[in-house]
Amino acid sequence: MLEPLDMLVDALCKLPSIGPKTAMRIALHILERPQEELDNLSECIATIKSKIVICKQCFNYSTSETCSVCSSTSRDRSIICVVEKPSDVFAFEKTGSYNGLYHVLGGVLSPINGITPDKLRIEELKKRLAQGKVKELILGLGASAEAETTCLYLARILSNFNLKITLIARGVPAGCELEYIDQLTLNKALSERVELHYEQKGE
Amino acid sequence: MLEPLDMLVDALCKLPSIGPKTAMRIALHILERPQEELDNLSECIATIKSKIVICKQCFNYSTSETCSVCSSTSRDRSIICVVEKPSDVFAFEKTGSYNGLYHVLGGVLSPINGITPDKLRIEELKKRLAQGKVKELILGLGASAEAETTCLYLARILSNFNLKITLIARGVPAGCELEYIDQLTLNKALSERVELHYEQKGE
Repeated sequence: MLEPLDMLVDALCKLPSIGPKTAMRIALHILERPQEELDNLSECIATIKSKIVICKQCFNYSTSETCSVCSSTSRDRSIICVVEKPSDVFAFEKTGSYNGLYHVLGGVLSPINGITPDKLRIEELKKRLAQGKVKELILGLGASAEAETTCLYLARILSNFNLKITLIARGVPAGCELEYIDQLTLNKALSERVELHYEQKGE
Repeated sequence: MLEPLDMLVDALCKLPSIGPKTAMRIALHILERPQEELDNLSECIATIKSKIVICKQCFNYSTSETCSVCSSTSRDRSIICVVEKPSDVFAFEKTGSYNGLYHVLGGVLSPINGITPDKLRIEELKKRLAQGKVKELILGLGASAEAETTCLYLARILSNFNLKITLIARGVPAGCELEYIDQLTLNKALSERVELHYEQKGE
């Protein structure tokens, strides 16, 4: 094959969810696009890292020293939601139903992969809590074994702060057929069932 | 969301087989990669069009005026395989069982989309055939209605050249279960069945 095309395919293959076949498709597509469009994509890729910094308060991605959530005056500063990585912040923000602050942990505990508590931003979290303004800490981590362990660890070491610690609910995801759901999830959904309240009409 | 990240996601979304979710995944992945790797990808994208030209003889992608197939001394110059686009050349080359030349047509006839014979490289093909060196013309087009029409059209207008015109076989693709195959393909496979020759052992 042609060397410049090979080089492009190789470079594209390093991106997630792009295998050799997709990379080839994209490369051939790129050859047909106007140079202007390619210059734009190329510049976005080359400059993105210099434009995005880490918020010094919550460690989310930001374009300025303090991110838009941390510097907003309309957010509830008495709640912090602990998340694993910046993309989780985007996920929570998209729900539109959370108005507190965040704290990006930078991972979950996984001693087998060398991720011990000192590798996560736990000291930074303690410092934020020590200011005494936070009333509730939401553990917004995933439901993997590592994430669950991290939640328990955090709950234990943060128990001396005067703080309500909550965990986002585990259970049946939206649109899910029960027959396809795993045992563990269904157990959890059953044991953590919530009471339904309804108001009778016409009373 | 963050503007530079949005811009990158938008630019990535323009590539084939990348939707908004994959684009976001790739963008967040890019943020975590070393700058060196991103500079390489970025440069590949920006410079690919200037490095790849169209072969003046067969119209395949090339790094020089005449592509490696056309300029090779070991290829059989009496056979030309007509293909739709450059990626088809790569597909034929990968089989390793074709040793002739190519002619990239640049599309297939589709009057409804404005692709009339003058939009394809048919005159250029005629010029190559007029040199009288070619003995066989393989029509290596796909099996869509447009491609079939193009084959019939080419066979008709090239009939006055002293030339064998062949069509790549249509039939059951490798690894295919017959129950999943469409009627048209099975009809074709049946009507164009070939005789099996075998040699008896021990004779």
